[in-house]
Amino acid sequence: MTARRTTEGPAARSGRPGRRPGGPDTRGEIIGAARKSFADKGFTATSIRAVAREAGVDAALVHHYFDSKDELFIEAMSLSVDPRQVAATVIDGPRDEIGRRIATVFLGVWESPDGQQRMRAIFRSIAGSDEVARVMREGITQLILQPVSKVLDVPDAALRVSLVATQLIGLAMVRYLIELEPVASADIQTLIDRLAPVLQHHLTG
Amino acid sequence: MTARRTTEGPAARSGRPGRRPGGPDTRGEIIGAARKSFADKGFTATSIRAVAREAGVDAALVHHYFDSKDELFIEAMSLSVDPRQVAATVIDGPRDEIGRRIATVFLGVWESPDGQQRMRAIFRSIAGSDEVARVMREGITQLILQPVSKVLDVPDAALRVSLVATQLIGLAMVRYLIELEPVASADIQTLIDRLAPVLQHHLTG
Repeated sequence: MTARRTTEGPAARSGRPGRRPGGPDTRGEIIGAARKSFADKGFTATSIRAVAREAGVDAALVHHYFDSKDELFIEAMSLSVDPRQVAATVIDGPRDEIGRRIATVFLGVWESPDGQQRMRAIFRSIAGSDEVARVMREGITQLILQPVSKVLDVPDAALRVSLVATQLIGLAMVRYLIELEPVASADIQTLIDRLAPVLQHHLTG
Repeated sequence: MTARRTTEGPAARSGRPGRRPGGPDTRGEIIGAARKSFADKGFTATSIRAVAREAGVDAALVHHYFDSKDELFIEAMSLSVDPRQVAATVIDGPRDEIGRRIATVFLGVWESPDGQQRMRAIFRSIAGSDEVARVMREGITQLILQPVSKVLDVPDAALRVSLVATQLIGLAMVRYLIELEPVASADIQTLIDRLAPVLQHHLTG
């Protein structure tokens, strides 16, 4: 869902000493540096400048490829869903259909050809590293939970939104990683129909 | 919740050739052999006899320590909750309070001193190995999902029970592994109150 730019860097930067010019691998190297920085320092402490330093390029070159740290996080963590897109989807539309919209957005993206593989990779990264777990925690909190909580004018909005996360993460874990039946092979519409009222209850029940 | 027996083996078996006698480490060796067998062959294909062979002991000695393959699985996987106990708890009591009983049983056991550490270990095992994921899938299905589904006389019982699993597994993942706030530090009673109606809806809604 994130718009990709071309892999060409700005030529004007290429003459600076100690800074590698933008080239065909630059974007990938920036993502690699970001992944390392998010893992080492966490989401909050990672900055565009620090990623640029880690990648040995100018900060402006990082900005050439990625609008913001959020976008860099999404790429680095291979998130299947753009968190900002999710927040917007949840916010726009009738309040009593939020549960259905959330279920539809997440399942729609996860069921894409590479969605399942990405989900498995994310679960494995989280389980394998406390650092990745921390980065995911901070990223999910700042990019999804906080914006959605802010818009929902209900008591305990933060708790409600994080309970939605438990149901969604559990569904993904059971369907894509543990592959427990009959959830693992249920059709998407059935799952959306089952999850919608439960997610709605978590948010507004 | 599983009754532990003493670590002394039956002395009568100790004279057989090629079979090690029951000793202080025998129980642990049997669990190690079971863990290997469950990982290599899965839950269904693992037998008490195969575990005994793997451990180099007589099948009767395995039976001395463990009543059944189920009990051996519970020990080998370090399950915090005895699945049979869970099934009994779910089944006994008013039908419209099943959701609350389930939430109370699982959170009660998970919040025990070593419960959180065990949950993290289980998630790491599942994420790290397709074999462990398969063993967990088969064990959960045969020991919890199928018995509970059989007792619930509702349409789609199997789907309903596995959806309960998605909510519970997601809660554990978010609270103990990702440690997403405010779920991570919410008090147990709050979580039970929030989960009860949702689990009830999955089962009978």
